[in-house]
Amino acid sequence: MAAHFRRIADFLKQAFADLRPEDAGRLAPRHTPSPPRIPGGSVIDDTAVGQRWALPALPPAARDALVDPWTREHQGAYTRNIENFIGTAKIPVGLAGPLRVNGAHASGDFYVPLATTEAALVASYSRGAQLVTEAGGCAAAVVNEGVTRAPAFAFATLAEASLFVAWATRNFDAFGSAARTTTRHGALVDLQLVIEGNNVHMGLEFTTGDASGQNMATIATEAVCRHIVEHTPVKPRYWFVEGNMSGDKKATAQSFMGVRGKKVSVEIVIPAALIESRLHTTAPAMADYARMSVLGGVMSGSIGVQGHFANGLAALFIACGQDAACVAEAAVGVTRLEARDDGSLYTAVTLPNLIVGTVGGGTSLPSQQACLEILGLAGAGHARAFAEVAAALLLAGELSIIGALTAGHFTRAHQRLARGPSPTPTA
Amino acid sequence: MAAHFRRIADFLKQAFADLRPEDAGRLAPRHTPSPPRIPGGSVIDDTAVGQRWALPALPPAARDALVDPWTREHQGAYTRNIENFIGTAKIPVGLAGPLRVNGAHASGDFYVPLATTEAALVASYSRGAQLVTEAGGCAAAVVNEGVTRAPAFAFATLAEASLFVAWATRNFDAFGSAARTTTRHGALVDLQLVIEGNNVHMGLEFTTGDASGQNMATIATEAVCRHIVEHTPVKPRYWFVEGNMSGDKKATAQSFMGVRGKKVSVEIVIPAALIESRLHTTAPAMADYARMSVLGGVMSGSIGVQGHFANGLAALFIACGQDAACVAEAAVGVTRLEARDDGSLYTAVTLPNLIVGTVGGGTSLPSQQACLEILGLAGAGHARAFAEVAAALLLAGELSIIGALTAGHFTRAHQRLARGPSPTPTA
Amino acid sequence: MAAHFRRIADFLKQAFADLRPEDAGRLAPRHTPSPPRIPGGSVIDDTAVGQRWALPALPPAARDALVDPWTREHQGAYTRNIENFIGTAKIPVGLAGPLRVNGAHASGDFYVPLATTEAALVASYSRGAQLVTEAGGCAAAVVNEGVTRAPAFAFATLAEASLFVAWATRNFDAFGSAARTTTRHGALVDLQLVIEGNNVHMGLEFTTGDASGQNMATIATEAVCRHIVEHTPVKPRYWFVEGNMSGDKKATAQSFMGVRGKKVSVEIVIPAALIESRLHTTAPAMADYARMSVLGGVMSGSIGVQGHFANGLAALFIACGQDAACVAEAAVGVTRLEARDDGSLYTAVTLPNLIVGTVGGGTSLPSQQACLEILGLAGAGHARAFAEVAAALLLAGELSIIGALTAGHFTRAHQRLARGPSPTPTA
Amino acid sequence: MAAHFRRIADFLKQAFADLRPEDAGRLAPRHTPSPPRIPGGSVIDDTAVGQRWALPALPPAARDALVDPWTREHQGAYTRNIENFIGTAKIPVGLAGPLRVNGAHASGDFYVPLATTEAALVASYSRGAQLVTEAGGCAAAVVNEGVTRAPAFAFATLAEASLFVAWATRNFDAFGSAARTTTRHGALVDLQLVIEGNNVHMGLEFTTGDASGQNMATIATEAVCRHIVEHTPVKPRYWFVEGNMSGDKKATAQSFMGVRGKKVSVEIVIPAALIESRLHTTAPAMADYARMSVLGGVMSGSIGVQGHFANGLAALFIACGQDAACVAEAAVGVTRLEARDDGSLYTAVTLPNLIVGTVGGGTSLPSQQACLEILGLAGAGHARAFAEVAAALLLAGELSIIGALTAGHFTRAHQRLARGPSPTPTA
Repeated sequence: MAAHFRRIADFLKQAFADLRPEDAGRLAPRHTPSPPRIPGGSVIDDTAVGQRWALPALPPAARDALVDPWTREHQGAYTRNIENFIGTAKIPVGLAGPLRVNGAHASGDFYVPLATTEAALVASYSRGAQLVTEAGGCAAAVVNEGVTRAPAFAFATLAEASLFVAWATRNFDAFGSAARTTTRHGALVDLQLVIEGNNVHMGLEFTTGDASGQNMATIATEAVCRHIVEHTPVKPRYWFVEGNMSGDKKATAQSFMGVRGKKVSVEIVIPAALIESRLHTTAPAMADYARMSVLGGVMSGSIGVQGHFANGLAALFIACGQDAACVAEAAVGVTRLEARDDGSLYTAVTLPNLIVGTVGGGTSLPSQQACLEILGLAGAGHARAFAEVAAALLLAGELSIIGALTAGHFTRAHQRLARGPSPTPTA
Repeated sequence: MAAHFRRIADFLKQAFADLRPEDAGRLAPRHTPSPPRIPGGSVIDDTAVGQRWALPALPPAARDALVDPWTREHQGAYTRNIENFIGTAKIPVGLAGPLRVNGAHASGDFYVPLATTEAALVASYSRGAQLVTEAGGCAAAVVNEGVTRAPAFAFATLAEASLFVAWATRNFDAFGSAARTTTRHGALVDLQLVIEGNNVHMGLEFTTGDASGQNMATIATEAVCRHIVEHTPVKPRYWFVEGNMSGDKKATAQSFMGVRGKKVSVEIVIPAALIESRLHTTAPAMADYARMSVLGGVMSGSIGVQGHFANGLAALFIACGQDAACVAEAAVGVTRLEARDDGSLYTAVTLPNLIVGTVGGGTSLPSQQACLEILGLAGAGHARAFAEVAAALLLAGELSIIGALTAGHFTRAHQRLARGPSPTPTA
Repeated sequence: MAAHFRRIADFLKQAFADLRPEDAGRLAPRHTPSPPRIPGGSVIDDTAVGQRWALPALPPAARDALVDPWTREHQGAYTRNIENFIGTAKIPVGLAGPLRVNGAHASGDFYVPLATTEAALVASYSRGAQLVTEAGGCAAAVVNEGVTRAPAFAFATLAEASLFVAWATRNFDAFGSAARTTTRHGALVDLQLVIEGNNVHMGLEFTTGDASGQNMATIATEAVCRHIVEHTPVKPRYWFVEGNMSGDKKATAQSFMGVRGKKVSVEIVIPAALIESRLHTTAPAMADYARMSVLGGVMSGSIGVQGHFANGLAALFIACGQDAACVAEAAVGVTRLEARDDGSLYTAVTLPNLIVGTVGGGTSLPSQQACLEILGLAGAGHARAFAEVAAALLLAGELSIIGALTAGHFTRAHQRLARGPSPTPTA
Repeated sequence: MAAHFRRIADFLKQAFADLRPEDAGRLAPRHTPSPPRIPGGSVIDDTAVGQRWALPALPPAARDALVDPWTREHQGAYTRNIENFIGTAKIPVGLAGPLRVNGAHASGDFYVPLATTEAALVASYSRGAQLVTEAGGCAAAVVNEGVTRAPAFAFATLAEASLFVAWATRNFDAFGSAARTTTRHGALVDLQLVIEGNNVHMGLEFTTGDASGQNMATIATEAVCRHIVEHTPVKPRYWFVEGNMSGDKKATAQSFMGVRGKKVSVEIVIPAALIESRLHTTAPAMADYARMSVLGGVMSGSIGVQGHFANGLAALFIACGQDAACVAEAAVGVTRLEARDDGSLYTAVTLPNLIVGTVGGGTSLPSQQACLEILGLAGAGHARAFAEVAAALLLAGELSIIGALTAGHFTRAHQRLARGPSPTPTA
């Protein structure tokens, strides 16, 4: 457990120099007057933005980079997506592809916009996408969907908690009716119940149409909770609309047991010739890597095992108006490689927790919508297809990085120590 | 385990309607010609960008939203951060604060730029930041730092793996020298070794100055590996520069055992009066929530337990040119609440895995550097302070959301079923 | 990650002295003739046992301790529980109690037989049991039950896997009929399905009456699998009766999501006076410990958070003829402590994964049945009550150890460094 | 998350029939007089045992099965291993083997005593052991060792916690001296430190000679803590000898990062001919199973990935006087299979957390010592060898069960639906 004392000693020595008791004072509270509050709130117009930039602490030179002409022209579009607006961050977008997807919902060749500041990321995913396309494209299927909120109820006793659970199991339909009062697009589709002493955690699972649906689920859950508190014969001492069991914005092991957002699986078989010509390696070498790295991941205590899902996911989410914080949960999944007798490589990527949407959130903001339009997936009717493209992209990324890692070793094995730097993971 | 069959049956019925064997054909590979490759590569000029937009699949209307005048003027700045550039995504930035930090490295009142498209996120963090400031600010300290790469070596036998490990433990200094040939800013500071049968996973831990340092660590690791392969008396059958044990871009339980990036801890005591006036709740109610939600998180199989670190972290990372994919790992941590006898609330947030930097990566791009300048933390010498501000921000976010969740129940308990929607998590 | 190189260097130096390449030879295969096979098999009589003891490698003196007169007299009883029998291991049994349980199924005051060789374990649990009893006993309820087997099926493609899943969701009743052909006591009650690329993992959940039911579930699963393979329109390439997703004999995070065996929750409120007179501490001090140690557990990467469930569970399982290997999974759970305003302490223990039975397995062997009779829970009709007593026992153990740890600190805080050893965890 | 509501509804309906509010009363505390306390304590003689059996609740018939003549004769031996003694549980012991181990410490052919009541377990392990032996035996090596206690210290502030950590890193030698005052056999060999807000968790790692060493580590830790509290310039508000971060008696992800007890790795190559003649399967089929089941385990949220370590481990621990509760932690590990081009199968088993000893605990009790003597590993000097034999046994068990699972599918694939029950996991 934990860091070795000699290493910490080294760090402390270097970081604190002569950390003395009297130095600890700098960590104490300071009750000097606070600098000014940030003016405004949700309002976005030249006046409000100007007042914020007038805060003495803000360097005027920074303003030009955030409030460019285009931003100033379009700033009204951001009213419902941000507070205390002071401009826009510009994230460079690169295209990866073409990426052929043969999906239950997505079918075609996609150029995928990726917003990132990390060099080589787009190149790596694009290389993988082209490989997928050359191999005929990947199969893809959304196999389940749903968004969960998990309110928690505290009772006086285990007996009351049990009575409550018994009551709740008989009232699923009424809960669904309560949820329906808040949304046309979402519906309560499942209910799970966990008793922990005198506490009850409740999993309410909703479909949310083409929205990622977290707000929709929260509002519907509020309505269900109000219905519950009004009608239950066993009153909770207190309750919360979320008791931290939903997995919202965090990696959890439960993802694999059910679904959060879309659950998607994609697969492909890459022929030996393509592996050699495009990745400069072989299927058995890639399978060697997979077998070794699965255990590397397991021994590090990761949830799921995969290479670098988060890279492609974050870049796609930022470009396409998804909730970038959901990368924390959506990057959970598994990659499986299998070398076949004919020298080809079977690869599957499964993502149980893909929180995505093509309406709502940031999807209708100008540059975000433009990115969805590049994919041909803007607006209603496209959420499942978008999920399949996302999974296909991550499959491409896994093939590319494992190819690079493996070509590295492969090259070295045949060249007896290359002089230049050997191929390395690109992101 | 897994999703309930009736739920899956419902989904499949609705998703596939009458899924029949013949429908499966749409998932089969298609060997029609690929659409055109994306022209260019790293080059960013009007010609290259124009060629990319000339791809037939790209909707011309999308171009205006990505290639605005400012972007076109500054596009040269992105050459080393992206490939296949087609413009920039504009992410709205809001200010949260002022946020008072009394840190070992960060000391002052900060206005924190957050880039997000999720409504209410900035408002929630800003509310928490003001609360922290009113309470005198939070204590903060980077308590360890280091970035790990984990190459893996495959030997013929366990005996050879053991001999290799014995040799490696005697050659730490030589490994450090090999690393030093690749960087002036980084240094090898620790070495860990894991034997798994005839495989050896090696953890090389580097300091990386003010850069987040993942590329620096990768390049140094390549150098160490070349040194190893050349000098070890026991030759590996094959090896990889990364065997998936480093935790790069993924949540792992090992974070708490050591450090990845910066390990930061922050704390604050909020007086009862402020909890009541600003959060409309009480310390005991917030502690009730904490106790319940810690177990909610534990039972969901999360790594660490916290509320919504990923929200603030993703928004800060995008604004300030950090690697947004690292949200997947950096959002791991713990939040602890403790109600005290005088009605005050002690809260601590600990982040063992904060991958951040103030040089390199996207930190010197125009709008990203502007955001760092708003913090006063652009450039060399500020990475640890930036880490402390990040942790302070997350502390503010935890206080704000737990306050909202608790005020919700508190209000309800006193109002006997509010008519309007009660306070809910804002993100 | 992993062990620090200096520590490994120290270990290797001391363990291998001068580990040299030539020393590695001792790890090489040796193809000398094998010593004799063990005679017999399932047969248990004086002849068979005598032949086994005649193996040259077995020290004759050891025989007396394993083949005592009582064992020799009763050895026929073990025929269906062991192979290659050579006698019995004698594990000392101590009584803990009385333990008052007010359960949905167990109601009364129990003396609990515990088989262990670890000093202080029985004393600690007995102390806790008496405290529970003095406080009026604990509430207890089995809140769910079921045993899962998880066969896995490999198909050619994701499309075939999807078609198979669609088919399976329509055939739950037929699967149940197939299961019923193998058992009168068990029934298929739920079905879960996980698609991972072209693989399908299937969770078959059975009730198993008063048996722990793992063999029953395996045999019924075989029957379901044969039915599946015969009737499915989509034939698997290969399949296994267990694909390692059931959690059998291992701690898994999925336990909390459902149930394995019995899911039991127990709770108690201990008045302040009893905490002081029996544990020599206070509720707030115990809650301090709980808050600190929950995070200790979380940061160690444990599944669930609790003190020492495994101690009481292993001792109870060995005494009462349960499958001791199931301690690996059954010891997963959570303990929650809450100090109340009146100085009392609320404590709950929840076990989602209690694999227990009162018929089958080792439950009818002479000394094991005697232990169940001491509890009054031998034979059919008692499995749920046994589960509630087990959970009550673990609650007692948590109170006892946390009391000891806390009294330690409490004493010290008041005595300013005790001279003798302060109270320490007893097991 | 959690169990599906319809399933819970089914269960509650069947379990509680018409669970009504008035029924909840049976879970309420009952303050009737307690039955008598258990007489005695540590004393074991005919009088004390007789008094315990005179408790009115104990069925006299049970006595004969627990207090047999041999037990009565040897009961004095148990004085230091149990309290409230009422006899012995008799667990049948079977022999598995011969098992050839070519280890750094264990070298030879072993007959392994296993105590279990689960049919087929010994047969399965014995089959695997013979296979290992026929293949020339397995390589084995203890690659690290150490036992951790993790005291926790609460300070007023993060600043004080940091000062304390800085002080502690400078006092490792003094901590070691304090530890040495309590034991001749153990030594403090490493120190880790975790800051979480104003709390500090400290990992003290000890070597413990040939004892499993948990008590030794606890006593030494008490001494170190007393030294700390006396000498630290920063006094803790309170502290505990264990803050639940050590992983004692529970599965934790941190096991792989370091070591608890012995870390052992074993490996073997089984030729194709033996796989076919003994397991009736092939290396590729076993590798197929391994690839599928590793992901099954990962998706279930297990720590490590393996088949059924707990089975062999529990049986070995009970027979040989080990702490059976440690199965909860020691069963964590990884199994790796690799099919080779020549049709052979490489298999490795790695156990980072093997808490074992050959002195202390239950190792010198009569039947337990007899079992250690059968192994030739009783007493001082044999702990590492015992650990290697344990790991070799688990390797044998993995080969046997995976062979059985695979032969099942293999047979079926070739026989087109067998009529009789196909081979299934034996435990």
